[in-house]
Amino acid sequence: MIVMGIDPGLAITGYGVLEKNGNRVVPLDYDSIVTSAKTMTPAERLETIHLRVGDLLDRYRPSHLAIEKLFFSRNVTSAMGVSEVRGVIILAAQQRGVPVSEYTPTQVKMAITGSGKADKLQMQEMIRRLLGLSEIPKPDDVADGLSVALCHIHVLR
Amino acid sequence: MIVMGIDPGLAITGYGVLEKNGNRVVPLDYDSIVTSAKTMTPAERLETIHLRVGDLLDRYRPSHLAIEKLFFSRNVTSAMGVSEVRGVIILAAQQRGVPVSEYTPTQVKMAITGSGKADKLQMQEMIRRLLGLSEIPKPDDVADGLSVALCHIHVLR
Repeated sequence: MIVMGIDPGLAITGYGVLEKNGNRVVPLDYDSIVTSAKTMTPAERLETIHLRVGDLLDRYRPSHLAIEKLFFSRNVTSAMGVSEVRGVIILAAQQRGVPVSEYTPTQVKMAITGSGKADKLQMQEMIRRLLGLSEIPKPDDVADGLSVALCHIHVLR
Repeated sequence: MIVMGIDPGLAITGYGVLEKNGNRVVPLDYDSIVTSAKTMTPAERLETIHLRVGDLLDRYRPSHLAIEKLFFSRNVTSAMGVSEVRGVIILAAQQRGVPVSEYTPTQVKMAITGSGKADKLQMQEMIRRLLGLSEIPKPDDVADGLSVALCHIHVLR
């Protein structure tokens, strides 16, 4: 089973693609999609993210896409921008018949560390260990993309 | 010049397509795209809106798409849902090379009635008169779609 996890953002969308073989979970790919407000319109940035996510879905053909869900934000303007990105990512999955599951940051923390209050460093260190990586993936968004993919795998167990 | 205006929403997306010939503005089409939470997943609803807006853009080939912008909302959860819809609509325009302009409700009211504090009924009556319609378009979302299209035409003058 292959799961793609995404931490959506207009500037940086982090993603991780994990394959589960029995009890082993192997990272197939993890990186970020970066778009710049300096050289692109908001519409061009959304199109780029939609295309890049679509390419990744075509390449890895995951059985599920797991995406971070914002359920509260002090910065409404930023939450709305991230939601536009979520819209085009969910669309890319739906266009390929890939089911989408959504997880709040608290659900992701619970699934990875057993505590909904884990801090960022604890989360990243757990991701590094659980996936057998030599280093914590950078930037944070990439680790978050891997985390939400791993959360989905743990929830399915 | 043809302008398409959209009032985005997950349940109801209202739209209006206006053609400007000299000083005359003629409505070519106005209606709503309705999706149901009872029969569709959120991803299917986003896909339906993306497809329907794409069909309208292909049919009328507007030179601009004008869309309502949320700049504040007391209900963050609802604002995030509407933003996902905005994302797939802006994407549909960008995929066809149609430039997108965004207007806040206050800007739309200013452009149509001369006051940013106009109430809904005053707005709808002005839309009816300015477009020479016999009745106020229903539901409200359709009148709002026409309003944002007309706002864009007025701003360009």
